[in-house]
Amino acid sequence: MRFTPAFTGSSPELDCAPFPASVPGNIQADYIKAHPEFIRDINYGLEHRRMTELEPLTWIYKTTLDYTLSPDEKLWFVTAGIDYVWFLLLDGEEFYAHEGMFSPVELCLTDLLGERLRPGAEFAVKIHPHPMRKDAPFGRAQADMCVKPPVSYGWDWHPRAIPSGIWDDTYFETRGPGHIDRAEVRYILSPDLTRADVFVDADTRAEALFRMYAPDGSLIYEKTAAPDALSLAFSVHNPVLWQCRGMGEPALYTWELRTAKDVKTGTVGFRRTRLVMNAGAWREPEEFPKTRSVPPAQIELNGRRVFGKGSNYVNQEIFTGTLTRERYEESVRAAAECHMNLFRCWGGSGIQKEDFYDLCDRYGIMVWVEFPLACNEYRNDSRYLAVLRQEAEAIVKKLRWHPCVVLFCGGNELFNSWSRMTDQHLALRLLNAVTLELAPEIPFIPTSPLSGMKHGGYTFLDRRTGLDPFALFGSAKATAYTEFGMPGITSADYLREIIPEDELFPPEPGEDSVWQAHHAFEAWGADAWLCLPMLERFGDVSTPEAMAETSAWLQSVGYKAVFEAARMQKPWCAMAVNWCWCEPWKCAVNNSLIAYPNVKKAAWYAVRDSLRDVLGAARIPKFAWRPGETMTLVPWLLNDSPEAQGGRVSLTVTVNGEQTFVGAADLEAEPLSNAKGSPLTFTLPRDLPPKTRFTVTAVLETRDGARTENAYELVVCDA
Amino acid sequence: MRFTPAFTGSSPELDCAPFPASVPGNIQADYIKAHPEFIRDINYGLEHRRMTELEPLTWIYKTTLDYTLSPDEKLWFVTAGIDYVWFLLLDGEEFYAHEGMFSPVELCLTDLLGERLRPGAEFAVKIHPHPMRKDAPFGRAQADMCVKPPVSYGWDWHPRAIPSGIWDDTYFETRGPGHIDRAEVRYILSPDLTRADVFVDADTRAEALFRMYAPDGSLIYEKTAAPDALSLAFSVHNPVLWQCRGMGEPALYTWELRTAKDVKTGTVGFRRTRLVMNAGAWREPEEFPKTRSVPPAQIELNGRRVFGKGSNYVNQEIFTGTLTRERYEESVRAAAECHMNLFRCWGGSGIQKEDFYDLCDRYGIMVWVEFPLACNEYRNDSRYLAVLRQEAEAIVKKLRWHPCVVLFCGGNELFNSWSRMTDQHLALRLLNAVTLELAPEIPFIPTSPLSGMKHGGYTFLDRRTGLDPFALFGSAKATAYTEFGMPGITSADYLREIIPEDELFPPEPGEDSVWQAHHAFEAWGADAWLCLPMLERFGDVSTPEAMAETSAWLQSVGYKAVFEAARMQKPWCAMAVNWCWCEPWKCAVNNSLIAYPNVKKAAWYAVRDSLRDVLGAARIPKFAWRPGETMTLVPWLLNDSPEAQGGRVSLTVTVNGEQTFVGAADLEAEPLSNAKGSPLTFTLPRDLPPKTRFTVTAVLETRDGARTENAYELVVCDA
Repeated sequence: MRFTPAFTGSSPELDCAPFPASVPGNIQADYIKAHPEFIRDINYGLEHRRMTELEPLTWIYKTTLDYTLSPDEKLWFVTAGIDYVWFLLLDGEEFYAHEGMFSPVELCLTDLLGERLRPGAEFAVKIHPHPMRKDAPFGRAQADMCVKPPVSYGWDWHPRAIPSGIWDDTYFETRGPGHIDRAEVRYILSPDLTRADVFVDADTRAEALFRMYAPDGSLIYEKTAAPDALSLAFSVHNPVLWQCRGMGEPALYTWELRTAKDVKTGTVGFRRTRLVMNAGAWREPEEFPKTRSVPPAQIELNGRRVFGKGSNYVNQEIFTGTLTRERYEESVRAAAECHMNLFRCWGGSGIQKEDFYDLCDRYGIMVWVEFPLACNEYRNDSRYLAVLRQEAEAIVKKLRWHPCVVLFCGGNELFNSWSRMTDQHLALRLLNAVTLELAPEIPFIPTSPLSGMKHGGYTFLDRRTGLDPFALFGSAKATAYTEFGMPGITSADYLREIIPEDELFPPEPGEDSVWQAHHAFEAWGADAWLCLPMLERFGDVSTPEAMAETSAWLQSVGYKAVFEAARMQKPWCAMAVNWCWCEPWKCAVNNSLIAYPNVKKAAWYAVRDSLRDVLGAARIPKFAWRPGETMTLVPWLLNDSPEAQGGRVSLTVTVNGEQTFVGAADLEAEPLSNAKGSPLTFTLPRDLPPKTRFTVTAVLETRDGARTENAYELVVCDA
Repeated sequence: MRFTPAFTGSSPELDCAPFPASVPGNIQADYIKAHPEFIRDINYGLEHRRMTELEPLTWIYKTTLDYTLSPDEKLWFVTAGIDYVWFLLLDGEEFYAHEGMFSPVELCLTDLLGERLRPGAEFAVKIHPHPMRKDAPFGRAQADMCVKPPVSYGWDWHPRAIPSGIWDDTYFETRGPGHIDRAEVRYILSPDLTRADVFVDADTRAEALFRMYAPDGSLIYEKTAAPDALSLAFSVHNPVLWQCRGMGEPALYTWELRTAKDVKTGTVGFRRTRLVMNAGAWREPEEFPKTRSVPPAQIELNGRRVFGKGSNYVNQEIFTGTLTRERYEESVRAAAECHMNLFRCWGGSGIQKEDFYDLCDRYGIMVWVEFPLACNEYRNDSRYLAVLRQEAEAIVKKLRWHPCVVLFCGGNELFNSWSRMTDQHLALRLLNAVTLELAPEIPFIPTSPLSGMKHGGYTFLDRRTGLDPFALFGSAKATAYTEFGMPGITSADYLREIIPEDELFPPEPGEDSVWQAHHAFEAWGADAWLCLPMLERFGDVSTPEAMAETSAWLQSVGYKAVFEAARMQKPWCAMAVNWCWCEPWKCAVNNSLIAYPNVKKAAWYAVRDSLRDVLGAARIPKFAWRPGETMTLVPWLLNDSPEAQGGRVSLTVTVNGEQTFVGAADLEAEPLSNAKGSPLTFTLPRDLPPKTRFTVTAVLETRDGARTENAYELVVCDA
């Protein structure tokens, strides 16, 4: 029997009454809820700044044990994760210490505490302040000696707000002889994918019945096993494979292991994931003196090269302990609706609760999992490496059986100049070794990006060249676009939820500016993310509403340009993954497609249009056009589906409400391949004022009569 | 007591009397020696071709056991390596099987065989034919399922000639209670290199006395330890560090562990080796979209960035089992004399006997060790991976305590298009994990070359651009030049040792041409290594003597150009390692600096000149000059020494015996850094016939009055 009693929270350094503490949750969120005079709304104004006051505190969760044990039962304490350095106490006396928030712990309190354990005893979890390197500057570098998401130490879209506490499932359990301590189902797929050899591995001291069901619910295997370490092996012939969205169904088999007293259930998705060389990459470089080719960036799922369409999932909450399955599902469902098939789960945000991966299994979203290292030089320090090994092993064991997990990665931007890690750092060699040992069937890369991939930029106009996204990404060459960002305001009303009316307009930077604190200015470089001069160049910024609309429009246009440019670069290019999907609090401006807590921005709809698996599209060389200028437009049929596609792609241009037919192409595309037509031209009228928006529309009419539209809004610039 | 009895060799498939078999050695070499009618001289003509006839054979080494044991002793069989799939038999009955030539084996025959073991019994080692992938084409791909040097399956400078047999130290030993089963001394250096924490780890069942002596012979530590697993720890303060040649002395501490009945001795060199980012490499790339920087290629030894000057060591014998310490020492000494500090021990040739590494320790030659993988796609096959793990663990344990070993590498050209391996191949992930586990203090790279390094070409004129080495390498940019080759004939007399007089001149290609079989034609590409049209373009090829001289001259000029160009590119460039050092048999033409078995080619002397640690040099833009053309020459002071250097570098040009002073520069160079002067010009006379050789000489006069010359021979081309 499991139970999670009510806990109270307190801190010895705070002179306040104990407050209700959520388990799972975050102690800082609980404290704030109980003390609105401290922070009323962390998303409003500068209220988040008080979060730093909580950093030096020790926190204590307390409860009074209330349980009954039958003679053959023992009491256990079980946690999926407590953040970060923590201790257990009984009646005020410490009996267990732990470092690491991702390693689950199961303790037999009966054995550990003997006669001291009794109903009515006071049970406490004490959380120490997070370890921080003493000589580190204020910011993410303070996280470089712990295995904790560095994002909460402050990022260019995340306030300084470091949570701790009992963040994942945690409970007491009375366990008797019939308890199942552990059960895992893994498999090896034959090279031709027609046979899965399934291995069931479990620990229980009772007789147990194992059953497996096919995705259609039919029973396919059943066996009663003798007590003690339970080990079964059987084959599934012609298994229904798990496919990502767009490639078929994310088929899941289910299993249960049942004793007289306990049951454990789970799912299995049969799939083979590999990271293979991008098409054509073996041909480069041609010349001597030879160097190596670019490393692989092409996901192959079940033998097929899948174009990865997706987004960078970051923590969708500051207080990740408060996330529920419902909140995760809103996010994962929105990705599937957006025609995505891939989340890069960015290392800066750490690992999510189990539900997230289960939902990705079910929605067919592949997950590229990064270990919680980002933008720091994690040192070859023996204490850090020991905790990293423990945490990495826990992470791999938690995730390896999820079919959605197609790639492990050491972390974010570790090889970049601001992190200064290399292949030689023991932390990354260790992660290679741990993943090889525990999950050799899942590819591993040490960091992202690698050679050949492109990462950034994060503004509509390139900061170095001034090029717009059509021009910049249309002529780029990358094995994968692993991050690219376009900033956008969600809406003027959204801004009013965070910025006091007297600061709202015009937006001003400054140390105490709410705009700036919410990442409109100085977030990354001097003029990000608002980029007001750029907005003014292309649109109306005279009111909050007009400015928000211009910003949202450019975000939409920019993302559309890059996603489609990347798709056109297939098969050399294998992925387009924008920065970023969601956000952890209300940003004034951000690259996200989903605003906090779950608001679809205009760009989400634009990206949804651009990621349709079968799409008529136009290659457009640039964004801003002079009056009278002649445009060269190329019709494309983009096909990410595993079937051949064919149809007519027609292009029209609409200026001031007047639609002109430019031309059409009859195109046939092989499975997972594109087709393109001959260039077409259109000359803009001469009398267009600057900032006039006009539209290029690509219409696809397939042989079966289906008709889909894909529209691009462009702009007129000075003559 | 150790003893190696006389063995005889035989093969059940051969109808011949048993022949004397050398232990260690190679059974094929023994068979040839006993059967001159089969192959009289493998280096002559086409005689090597009969080697393939021996491939399908099983070989048997036999001896009659002759030993006496005192009551507390047992008989052991000990081998450092038997090539490759082998079995042990007693009186005709198999009792042990093994796969792998690098894993040592120690067997207690007394325990294993019981009463069957007796003096007078027949002891045999049976060697099976090497496993080869059935569907592999004839050549190196046949080696892709075993951990064996692929070079012997045929390479562009190595005949098809695959050895096997008892190739490394192998003996019987009577062991009593005082025997020392194992002893290893390792250490951890403090970050500031002022303290070494030394760990002695040994297995013996007797009381043992451990002693350590400083490089000057003084006793610095002594302790008697109790029986059973012996473990000592102590610190050496301000240890004398092991330095590579040119950076100081290769200081070695010595140790001995002594029981009443046994003694083991060894050396320790205290040094820290790291692979760090090349100077300036963190600044690239500047632009978004960001990709990673190049991986590190700079060896840092004891905190100092050492410019790696060296060569690719390949097997110096077809029959590596016959190599002796003397043969190894000839080679290692010649490298030190050539002012080198680095051998890249090329993966295609496998791992050498212990003596090689011991000599590198003593001569201060750093060693980049490659695992025996080269130019194949080694598969993710579980049997291969299991043997690879066993062999890799043995290799790392054998080499990790040698101070000369500064880098482990997965193998040669594995990421290149002809091999098609990537970071995802489990063999390379495994090698990373094994080296991390057993020798985390030694850097590891998965293969060579990596991004940023240059590898090739192998001809005087670049095959793609036609550029000469001054032009091509003078304008290249590489973190390291890991291979570059210039072909050269050793001498006309040397050719006569391998080519019958009637074939000697003019050289002709052809399937049965001895020239071609000895790699003058079609070795690599259509016109390698002789490159006769190129020789004719620049020199006299009218007689064997003239042709050999022209060839040797261009090899010398070419190597000089590249080594000095690489030195001038310091610190971005961190290494210049030519292809190759030695050769396993008598090649007609090859890129080697040392001809088989130990003949210093003209190029060896040229390279020795170019690699002097402190050198006056001239940057010369190209090799061939028109009459009347104006040359721009830049004086350089190249300094690879750890001290500042200064002096005057004067340039002269000598044409037809007439020397002209061009100019001079007073230059000051920081430690480990170069200095360069202003460009100087010299105009050639107008009346020079083509193919006239002329000389640029750089003279360095240092402040202390030392004077060194460095001369470059260039050529006149058509006007």
